[in-house]
Amino acid sequence: MRELAQQLRVDAVRSSAAAGSGHPTSGMSAADLMAVLFTKYLRYDFDAPENEANDHLVFSKGHASPLLYALYKAAGAIDDEELLTFREFGSRLQGHPTPEIPWVDVATGSLGQGLPIAVGIALAAAKLESSELRVWTLCGDSELAEGSTWEAFEHAGYTGLSNLTAIVDVNRLGQRGPTMHEWDTSKLAARAAACDWHVQEIDGHDFDAIDDAYAKALAADRPAVIFARTKKGSGVAAVEDQPNWHGKPLADPEAAVEELGGIRDVRVEVQAPPPAKPFEIERAPVERPSYELGEKVATRAAYGDALAWLGSIDERVVALDGEVGNSTYAERFAAKHPDRFFEMYIAEQQMVASAIGMQTRGWKPFASSFGAFLSRAYDFVRMGAISDADLKLCGSHVGVSIGADGPSQMALEDIASLRAVLGSVVLYPSDPNQTVALLDLMRQHRGVSYMRTTREKTPVVYGADESFEIGGSRTIRSGDGDAICLIGAGITLHECLTAADRLAENGVAARVIDLYSVKPVDADTILAAAEETRALVTVEDHWHEGGIGETVAGVLADAGSGTPLVRLAVSERPGSGPPQALLAAAGIDADHIVAAAERALQPSAA
Amino acid sequence: MRELAQQLRVDAVRSSAAAGSGHPTSGMSAADLMAVLFTKYLRYDFDAPENEANDHLVFSKGHASPLLYALYKAAGAIDDEELLTFREFGSRLQGHPTPEIPWVDVATGSLGQGLPIAVGIALAAAKLESSELRVWTLCGDSELAEGSTWEAFEHAGYTGLSNLTAIVDVNRLGQRGPTMHEWDTSKLAARAAACDWHVQEIDGHDFDAIDDAYAKALAADRPAVIFARTKKGSGVAAVEDQPNWHGKPLADPEAAVEELGGIRDVRVEVQAPPPAKPFEIERAPVERPSYELGEKVATRAAYGDALAWLGSIDERVVALDGEVGNSTYAERFAAKHPDRFFEMYIAEQQMVASAIGMQTRGWKPFASSFGAFLSRAYDFVRMGAISDADLKLCGSHVGVSIGADGPSQMALEDIASLRAVLGSVVLYPSDPNQTVALLDLMRQHRGVSYMRTTREKTPVVYGADESFEIGGSRTIRSGDGDAICLIGAGITLHECLTAADRLAENGVAARVIDLYSVKPVDADTILAAAEETRALVTVEDHWHEGGIGETVAGVLADAGSGTPLVRLAVSERPGSGPPQALLAAAGIDADHIVAAAERALQPSAA
Repeated sequence: MRELAQQLRVDAVRSSAAAGSGHPTSGMSAADLMAVLFTKYLRYDFDAPENEANDHLVFSKGHASPLLYALYKAAGAIDDEELLTFREFGSRLQGHPTPEIPWVDVATGSLGQGLPIAVGIALAAAKLESSELRVWTLCGDSELAEGSTWEAFEHAGYTGLSNLTAIVDVNRLGQRGPTMHEWDTSKLAARAAACDWHVQEIDGHDFDAIDDAYAKALAADRPAVIFARTKKGSGVAAVEDQPNWHGKPLADPEAAVEELGGIRDVRVEVQAPPPAKPFEIERAPVERPSYELGEKVATRAAYGDALAWLGSIDERVVALDGEVGNSTYAERFAAKHPDRFFEMYIAEQQMVASAIGMQTRGWKPFASSFGAFLSRAYDFVRMGAISDADLKLCGSHVGVSIGADGPSQMALEDIASLRAVLGSVVLYPSDPNQTVALLDLMRQHRGVSYMRTTREKTPVVYGADESFEIGGSRTIRSGDGDAICLIGAGITLHECLTAADRLAENGVAARVIDLYSVKPVDADTILAAAEETRALVTVEDHWHEGGIGETVAGVLADAGSGTPLVRLAVSERPGSGPPQALLAAAGIDADHIVAAAERALQPSAA
Repeated sequence: MRELAQQLRVDAVRSSAAAGSGHPTSGMSAADLMAVLFTKYLRYDFDAPENEANDHLVFSKGHASPLLYALYKAAGAIDDEELLTFREFGSRLQGHPTPEIPWVDVATGSLGQGLPIAVGIALAAAKLESSELRVWTLCGDSELAEGSTWEAFEHAGYTGLSNLTAIVDVNRLGQRGPTMHEWDTSKLAARAAACDWHVQEIDGHDFDAIDDAYAKALAADRPAVIFARTKKGSGVAAVEDQPNWHGKPLADPEAAVEELGGIRDVRVEVQAPPPAKPFEIERAPVERPSYELGEKVATRAAYGDALAWLGSIDERVVALDGEVGNSTYAERFAAKHPDRFFEMYIAEQQMVASAIGMQTRGWKPFASSFGAFLSRAYDFVRMGAISDADLKLCGSHVGVSIGADGPSQMALEDIASLRAVLGSVVLYPSDPNQTVALLDLMRQHRGVSYMRTTREKTPVVYGADESFEIGGSRTIRSGDGDAICLIGAGITLHECLTAADRLAENGVAARVIDLYSVKPVDADTILAAAEETRALVTVEDHWHEGGIGETVAGVLADAGSGTPLVRLAVSERPGSGPPQALLAAAGIDADHIVAAAERALQPSAA
């Protein structure tokens, strides 16, 4: 075991030296911890990472990648040659691990995310699959300052996830200097204990202590955490427990390798997992919801109805909510499929992390909160995209149209922020039947997708049998003589329709496009409108920046279209008030659309 | 005191009834707690909210606004007539409190933010001003699930902020049902104690216990938290400790008022604060940094130099960093002005919250981390803008050009997300002298501003005496016969300059614009280029969505310009590798700019 641990250190030093960068010292501190784990406790078939009975190991301290990759070599998963491609362009052994590597579940490197995601994996295994797998996560001590870590402690303790073990590598040194508590693990231990965890504090370089701690962790009837006091750069005097050696290769790697006893080729036989056991999922029958033309139904309510239906046709659908299920209407899923509903309380980071964890096991998680509060989990969504996660988000209560609750509750930046996520899909239904159809498309789509729903009731404008597509749009009104094209989505679509009626009364024919798929966007339909009308008007209950207007502007500019575009969006701080008053104050109601259209069509403006 | 408390309940019921919405029951639970605070402990001159010796009271549970506004009436700050404008359009008494009200420091309503911000206020008072003021914050129990709350407990305990008292209204019921721990405060108390807080658990409806708890909290030599078990809707049997009464006016407000003993007009004389004491701030002399043309200096290094200089010319400048000061170079400020530097460890939410808290006391906080990790605090920035906060952010290590560390460390969404913040300024320097000038503009600008800095060293292209402006741009190369215009910023400006050289060799004259002010943007210069050249090319180390390209597209579309625009930006998941290889792989290096320009100028494309 000691030989293995020394090899891990040697290989961490060597790969970082070859790369000319990396974090070898952050891996060396945890080498003994991981040597024992791989030798005696981890159950994982490196030849079959898809084996659903495999344990999971999440390197929450993703910068310790030189250690992780050294472990892969020791387990025979990669060879020495590949090890030395660390951080090279094109190598899958990147600076921080990503799922391009088949044994990596999720990208880490943004600290404080691995443990919350591990909680999600453990939740899926324990609560959905009754699996016997174990979830291990290696955390750094610095990242315990992240609140997200404590959301994870709280949730795992509350839920009693005995399949989860967190190994904290307390090496006392962060990037720029000592951590808050250095080697005093007593306070962290007390906090974890108060979160109902099984807690141990050990010397992280004592093999017997490590072995004993893992055995006790596995025997515990609750999540277990091991605070292991270690030395950063352990094993090489020049860097051991020394400051200013974070994120750097060693100055003299050859001497370090010699000090560590030289290059080895120890091979560790990681235990295979026991056979997976089948499990059953209950599916309550729920009919596909449909709504009558003329009814008024909020898209958020349709989200709840649709999600309950999707749960009945797809047993892999699960739902999570941030203690607002009676507002997002996720409660309608919970009522039908209680075993697949997860109340995450007011902890949006843990909610999104849980979803990311669950999708690593093939679940299709839908996570909902007010759109404004999803901004709390933005870094998790960003990292989820790097993980290529199948993550479905719903944000309700968007825009000024929520009314009296005021600006703190209004999502006005969600389109911009969630469009700016790698490969994301952003859908914004205006009608309950469309909500149902689009949510089913989200279910079938693999990747990060986001649906924006409206608090207020809006009229049904589509039949229940109409179909839509990701990347599509719907031209609701059009004719040969259209003078102008109004483009809206969600609540502003209805303002556009009202405006088109008024314009028609004034003799102006207005085309109306429902741009329900904001990303990807239907450029062809926009460009056809730009060809066939004299001006376009976009209207959105969102800030100007990064929203529907800029999306359309990008389409026009890419094509070199010279058709004038008028962009109506929110530009000033809204307050409280009735929805219609706030739409008017923001300049995005039918009156303002009519005025903007008429201005755009004046001869001088043409 | 009991009469006052009943009046607060009555007025919460009345204002919510008048509004037809609101959260009266969430205020009623804390009425006794606040009655004692206002009667005996708070020191605040409602006639002079600008008095710097006033205590601060942050309603972290912002939805309890009916209670807060009832307190204002009891203190004589507002009259009954105004109280009943609650949630009306145009009333400053919004659904959740904002600083439109002179006695409110910061907008709340996104749970888990008030306590972290209170920590920032307490840090400023204790560490910068040696003030004797006290910071009080009223928290809900539901929001203790937010990790940000525990960042605050950790930081305040670690720092020993004895001027801070958190009052937790443990009313057992969240929005949709019971909280995790309901009235069992023991675990929360243990966690707070392990964060080095003075901890009390009391009956929140026992006036003597409340009084005693406040006295002990003030006497403590550390931050104090009082977990007060209360009943939601306390005082009215129909709603007291009943589920499904969150965020709703009472069904029979008149009966409730009668049950509470009727309408009163109790007036509470809140104590005035003691006179403010003067304090001194040390200012080490630092020369304005300047760099020679031809030198290569990273803009992140210039940020550190510039910040140290600003600290010497403006004693109100303070700096905060998220444990990466040796990467953002905030450490250069810390070296010169250690008393005004705050190490926030890896807790970006607490970092931004601290900055927001400090600016309520007139400080000018600059908070820095990797740009990618500022996404962790996005909700705090969003709320900061609603608070009209003077918040200066710097994100380093942006884009693929950071190189080998890989995508988890690359900010590629920061321009989009931070442009989509109310009234924000987004600056992106390409050169160290420009960085210095722009950072000084950020110091002088009041509002949310963001500077994006680059990891790699880039050549100095501007003289140290050149001036820039928010909303400006710099046309670096131009001539009468310009065929095309290249628009870059930051690292891509240098790629544009290289491309322009190569294009010149091929006989193509290229204008080059440095779009260092991404928001607000210099539309005039862009439109002039669109008039005077045949095509524009934007180049950015950022996703396509919401970045420089869409900003320019918006300018062109608003003006109805038909000049073709080619937008080069990152569109695929980057990996690790050398910076130049990653710029090439993303299609944003000089080679790709040249190719795009030549394509755009081909006759068939014109």
